[in-house]
Amino acid sequence: MGLGIALNLGRRGFDVVGYDADSAARKRFRSEGGRVGESIHHAASGADFVVSVVVNADQTESILFGDHGALEVAAAGAIVISCATMAPEKARSLAARVCSAGYRYLDAPISGGSARAASGELTILCSGEADTVVSSRKVLESMASTIFDLGDEPGTGSAFKMINQLLAGIHIAAASEAIAFAAAHRLDLRKVFEVITRSAGNSWMFENRMPHVLDADYSPRSSVEIFVKDLGIVEDMARSERFPVPMASAALQMFLMTSASGMGKDDDASVARLYARIANISLNASSANGVEEISADAMQQV
Amino acid sequence: MGLGIALNLGRRGFDVVGYDADSAARKRFRSEGGRVGESIHHAASGADFVVSVVVNADQTESILFGDHGALEVAAAGAIVISCATMAPEKARSLAARVCSAGYRYLDAPISGGSARAASGELTILCSGEADTVVSSRKVLESMASTIFDLGDEPGTGSAFKMINQLLAGIHIAAASEAIAFAAAHRLDLRKVFEVITRSAGNSWMFENRMPHVLDADYSPRSSVEIFVKDLGIVEDMARSERFPVPMASAALQMFLMTSASGMGKDDDASVARLYARIANISLNASSANGVEEISADAMQQV
Repeated sequence: MGLGIALNLGRRGFDVVGYDADSAARKRFRSEGGRVGESIHHAASGADFVVSVVVNADQTESILFGDHGALEVAAAGAIVISCATMAPEKARSLAARVCSAGYRYLDAPISGGSARAASGELTILCSGEADTVVSSRKVLESMASTIFDLGDEPGTGSAFKMINQLLAGIHIAAASEAIAFAAAHRLDLRKVFEVITRSAGNSWMFENRMPHVLDADYSPRSSVEIFVKDLGIVEDMARSERFPVPMASAALQMFLMTSASGMGKDDDASVARLYARIANISLNASSANGVEEISADAMQQV
Repeated sequence: MGLGIALNLGRRGFDVVGYDADSAARKRFRSEGGRVGESIHHAASGADFVVSVVVNADQTESILFGDHGALEVAAAGAIVISCATMAPEKARSLAARVCSAGYRYLDAPISGGSARAASGELTILCSGEADTVVSSRKVLESMASTIFDLGDEPGTGSAFKMINQLLAGIHIAAASEAIAFAAAHRLDLRKVFEVITRSAGNSWMFENRMPHVLDADYSPRSSVEIFVKDLGIVEDMARSERFPVPMASAALQMFLMTSASGMGKDDDASVARLYARIANISLNASSANGVEEISADAMQQV
């Protein structure tokens, strides 16, 4: 997602220096005309904004405060825009450290995946001091089509993100359970998709992920490991706060089983493959044209 | 839901005789101009269609085959339109009994709740012999705005309905867990509703049920007991077929806990109240105007 964000920032006129630990990502950025730093230190040197697009709080901390970290060299008063999904408590503690080092912090987890990052259509759930939000607007606009300003406390954006991830993870596991259960009943899975997406059982995730199952295409748009991580954060938060999350917990176990079965790096719809493997059923969808749906008006003409 | 269906059939010109075990329902039907039978036997006498709108397979069986049941007196070759949610196996066995008694059977579970039943905007997931479907069209049209014709085998409609209920039940439990977890984090619940309904964590059920929580209105549109029943059917099916459904199982436990806490007859969004009660938190929503969402275009003007 960092690649898409960096390219969009460049297109909107920002002077972007990109860095990724993965040399392949650096190469792609360069091939699309981006300027690649030799290191985090080099990329962040003199920067007014440090946009950190990594997987978790530890990586964020390492980028900012690690040996030769970004905050050794960023411009005075620079704004850190932190996009990783993390526990609100972590975001608050990072914000405090960033501020006491003389910088500003925006808690700005993102949602939408790499395709939307590339098109500049991410959703950002941001919180932070009002003037920091105002100063960051052009940057945020370049990244996202939807920006929720959730108040002036770092941690609030992250809390909203975790609520979203709790639901998203459960819904992927539920969709997987449902489609595999339908397959066990030898229902036409394309009909199931059509009926459910127009019924009360629908979810954003069912609609978005189940086509991967119908097409038997598990190349990762978002991997199983992402939800092992995110539902793990939910469970850690919940346990330390003494709040029970049995639904998220059941979903996490399904992602863990899918990862344990060797599909951790595959698309998260692979949870459906796990159910199918366990129950020894096929998820092959028909190539039929789908269900006959007749509106009442159409039926009257018959 | 039977009341709304009966009224809509009457409005479309059918000669309807209604019967409900509940005298209050009979009274309401009469007060809206409906003709009420003195008994099932009386209501079904000479009927070309027997539309059975009850809670489960047992009640359906009792209506059709009980003492003074409908099929003692319905017209020769009458069509039974069975709307209860039940296991596909039950639907198949009822269909076989109905057919061997010289009648026809349409497996026609409905979805949408009593409000949509009243407005004639139900969804019907029907399966049955093609000529039975054709002969029933005007009846189905009078009940529903969306009719899925799912093939010629009774049981298929019921199987699709159970897949939908599996998802719907999980999504209500997930939405309840999420909104209560958000409340535990002292997030503004109206903001949570706005953000989630525009994010990847959304579900039809989140969007439909969480306003009940925000308004603290648990008058039953659909009760907790309905999902105790429907997820119970899912679990019975799954266990007998040796298919694991851990997500549905976790959700069923939440509905059972909610029922055990004395909220069985309340709205199914009461699962959120159970989480709040367990964790000793308040679900009071703010009366604020909601989250500031700024489209990228709007932000540019600032």
